[in-house]
Amino acid sequence: MSESSTHELAMLVHTRDEPGVLYQLTRVIAEHRANITYVDITERRAGQATVYFELDQVADPRALIEDLEMLPVVSQIEETPSFARIYGKRIIVIGGGAQVGQVALGAISEADRHNIRGERISVDTIPLVGEETLAAAVRAVARLPRAAALVLAGSLMGGDITRAVHEVREKGILVVSLNMAGSVPKAADLVVTDPVQAGVMTVMAVASTAKFDISRQRGRQY
Amino acid sequence: MSESSTHELAMLVHTRDEPGVLYQLTRVIAEHRANITYVDITERRAGQATVYFELDQVADPRALIEDLEMLPVVSQIEETPSFARIYGKRIIVIGGGAQVGQVALGAISEADRHNIRGERISVDTIPLVGEETLAAAVRAVARLPRAAALVLAGSLMGGDITRAVHEVREKGILVVSLNMAGSVPKAADLVVTDPVQAGVMTVMAVASTAKFDISRQRGRQY
Repeated sequence: MSESSTHELAMLVHTRDEPGVLYQLTRVIAEHRANITYVDITERRAGQATVYFELDQVADPRALIEDLEMLPVVSQIEETPSFARIYGKRIIVIGGGAQVGQVALGAISEADRHNIRGERISVDTIPLVGEETLAAAVRAVARLPRAAALVLAGSLMGGDITRAVHEVREKGILVVSLNMAGSVPKAADLVVTDPVQAGVMTVMAVASTAKFDISRQRGRQY
Repeated sequence: MSESSTHELAMLVHTRDEPGVLYQLTRVIAEHRANITYVDITERRAGQATVYFELDQVADPRALIEDLEMLPVVSQIEETPSFARIYGKRIIVIGGGAQVGQVALGAISEADRHNIRGERISVDTIPLVGEETLAAAVRAVARLPRAAALVLAGSLMGGDITRAVHEVREKGILVVSLNMAGSVPKAADLVVTDPVQAGVMTVMAVASTAKFDISRQRGRQY
């Protein structure tokens, strides 16, 4: 089966809330040789649960849904738009509150301009303090679904945060750093002094509607 | 087994990348009667995949990890901190770029003050335009992991967006609206005119380190 004849499928599966439900659902999905790109248990109450799946390489979405509906634990299946279609690529901004806010302002304004032209870029932030906390947050970016770029917005970052930057860059995440004290700027793809511009440039780098080519900018400082 | 004697477990499972892997992993997890609260396929390259799990109600984490390691498809397992521990509760801000930016500014500043005291609040945003797009984004908030509150930041919202607001409020999401044209403000838990204050108040409402009690504020307008 070539990939061009397969489909993506996002759906909410309403089930009984009991151990082993995901095992039963994934067995049917595996039988259809579909690939699970995202799963989440979105709701659990009164003995009922809702499991959200995003799949790709689905040969026959109708047949898959029918086979899932035949499981006694499944009560209902709803197709939905995927997170990728709704929230798209994510830019993650981590650091001190004052600077995270300014980077977000630039990134949100620029994302607005691209999203109006059909892009889907969301800007996610968390203000944090402390080397260990920041390094863990940076490492977790590589595990976040749809994360495309990370902006480090602070005044002093180094040590284990720098090691974490190298790790997430290896996993294909673009890292932009404000110009700051510590070793993080040297580890980043791009260093920008003005936080608003750092947000704008990061969105330009990930937007397919923009002309900004990060491969020509790597290692530069603005 | 009482819940008090069980544990939470977050781990990265390195596996071969082939159909049915998740089915094999969830079978072992089901045999241990552990509950999957989050799953994601975080990396796929060169025939290898990495699956990230968050579990609760794990009776014996060591035994579960050992049983997973015995599967031929599993090459390695790493324990990690959970997303909940790193990024915590999420506040989602949706609407027009100018206003989303100002709400984010207020929310990030206030989240910073709580996160310094041990909270974990992240502020996620997406600038969007159009009733259908906005309604889909609002509905998707109920499916987002760890979403606690939604801020609608625009100048005119109604119609299907208002129906979506009612749906996500039913699923336990707090909805704050800017004071704006259209029927959305009437459907929200709280209406705030100043976007910076809307961001601050939303963080106060979800922070366990704050004194703000949303049950005393519901239906009010500032």
